[in-house]
Amino acid sequence: MKKIINNVENIAAEMVSGFVKTNPAKFKQLPETLAVARVDDDFVNGTNVGIVSGGGSGHEPLHLGYVGKGMLSAAIAGQVNTSPTPDQIYKAIKYADKGKGVLLIVKNYAGDVMNFDMAKELAEFDDITVKTIIVNDDISVEDAEDTQGKRGVAGTVLVEKICGAAAQNGMDLNSLAELGQKVIDNTKTIGLALSAATVPAVGHPGFKLAEDEMEYGVGIHNERGYATEKLAPSAVIANELVNRIMKAFGSTNGEFAILVNGLGATPLMEQYIFANDVVNKLNELNIKISFAKVGNMVTAIDMHGISLTITKLENDWKSYLRQDAQTVAW
Amino acid sequence: MKKIINNVENIAAEMVSGFVKTNPAKFKQLPETLAVARVDDDFVNGTNVGIVSGGGSGHEPLHLGYVGKGMLSAAIAGQVNTSPTPDQIYKAIKYADKGKGVLLIVKNYAGDVMNFDMAKELAEFDDITVKTIIVNDDISVEDAEDTQGKRGVAGTVLVEKICGAAAQNGMDLNSLAELGQKVIDNTKTIGLALSAATVPAVGHPGFKLAEDEMEYGVGIHNERGYATEKLAPSAVIANELVNRIMKAFGSTNGEFAILVNGLGATPLMEQYIFANDVVNKLNELNIKISFAKVGNMVTAIDMHGISLTITKLENDWKSYLRQDAQTVAW
Repeated sequence: MKKIINNVENIAAEMVSGFVKTNPAKFKQLPETLAVARVDDDFVNGTNVGIVSGGGSGHEPLHLGYVGKGMLSAAIAGQVNTSPTPDQIYKAIKYADKGKGVLLIVKNYAGDVMNFDMAKELAEFDDITVKTIIVNDDISVEDAEDTQGKRGVAGTVLVEKICGAAAQNGMDLNSLAELGQKVIDNTKTIGLALSAATVPAVGHPGFKLAEDEMEYGVGIHNERGYATEKLAPSAVIANELVNRIMKAFGSTNGEFAILVNGLGATPLMEQYIFANDVVNKLNELNIKISFAKVGNMVTAIDMHGISLTITKLENDWKSYLRQDAQTVAW
Repeated sequence: MKKIINNVENIAAEMVSGFVKTNPAKFKQLPETLAVARVDDDFVNGTNVGIVSGGGSGHEPLHLGYVGKGMLSAAIAGQVNTSPTPDQIYKAIKYADKGKGVLLIVKNYAGDVMNFDMAKELAEFDDITVKTIIVNDDISVEDAEDTQGKRGVAGTVLVEKICGAAAQNGMDLNSLAELGQKVIDNTKTIGLALSAATVPAVGHPGFKLAEDEMEYGVGIHNERGYATEKLAPSAVIANELVNRIMKAFGSTNGEFAILVNGLGATPLMEQYIFANDVVNKLNELNIKISFAKVGNMVTAIDMHGISLTITKLENDWKSYLRQDAQTVAW
């Protein structure tokens, strides 16, 4: 295993520390946690609903890169591929609450769902109103390892962006939870890997693909997908992902947002070539793209691969996506 | 070779196309070129000095990701690791000129220097005033392959940011060229690779490092560096790079900007751990960091590695770095 690290035990702690130390004017680390939180005047003097997310490390820039005006109030990192602890999530909720309550955006993994739920209960003892939405945008497989139902993957960042913008504009907690749930219902993702990630504590790739193989439907924790196939051109992969996602939508009417996401070790060169094929395919199907984003947004450590997320837009979502966000990674 | 591409010949063209198609409101591709250019109202109706950069593909988001308000007017991509052609650079200069002239920011490689120079001559026939600055921030080796003097690497993006902000604020061409040259003189970079990049047309990594080896001083075109050593912890690498760069500055007085840059296949996790070690080392040396950036800013296709850039700040440079930029990648 070749990685630029010091030791496996300190990965999450040193990463969070590096993030905060390189952005000292915008963020702080909450005491005795791996939580990153806003310190800008807009937040400190603000009264908006707080938005908190978090999860295991290894998916950077998710979630810490999305803390800032117009997105998250705070984000808690766990150890690599491990949920953050309830007490740390609780501290982040407390910090994020400005009297209007806090929305928790949680990816659908058993550990995250349980720990965010325990933190929610702790916060409710303090009379903080908390609502939770569970992101489960990965349509490639159901009931995978560690998941009941579908996994939460790259679509999470679109949920965070839309809810974050709406909260910034003053939306109340109940409406935000409803909005977030609607975005989740309208968001579908499928991943594709050319090679698996190496979890630092494991020291070798999580699964093996031959030099001429790729895997459709992978998760962001090295979960296998729905098909291992011969390595295909970008346009073939784009067709498969677009067709499968649009079939799940059932209709091509309306406006859509797309997110082409690199999984950690994928050069932008490949992401833009793939994005070109995705747009070509969507154009061929007469599907209207009103928003597009390309980049390493939700990664799987050093997995070489991409995911495609498509969201069917409703109401003001397009303007929420386009609204300015003062984060490191949006 | 595993890559998400269609065919090797079309890489640059499809990449530029994917970039423009996913950002249609902000950019256009100039006809019969691989040049990306601003189309926003500020540019179209503006009268600022134009700023044009470009170079071989494989370093994304450089340069196309830095086109936009507050940075570049246009950027031209060449084929992978190959300079763009003079006629395409000329078209970008023509497009960027608003009557106040155009600044060319060129990385110090023989092909780039020659082709940008030919384009400058073509533009001068049209009575466009053009100035060129040559970025040569890589202090690890002199007179490498394809280079006389030092290579231009990640520091290029800081030159583009500072000059872009100053141009946006109305600075004239002569002052911009002087400013850019000063930034170059005050900017030093060293790279570090755990593995080489695979140039698509070649099909295998450009050089071999053993499973326990790393190389100090690599360039962004698979150029070897100054030392092959046993893989070391992040903190050891940070010490080596900081010490060598600060020794080249000769003094720790003043304020500095740092850029921790991923070379293509390096997870953000590793970049933030390394950034943490860099900041710790700089703090230990009582060096004042006034600006910091971490991410895949100037890559070498799928090289696994990082570079550290340090710029000694003068005058208004800090505010130019902090000024808003409407680009995809800054």
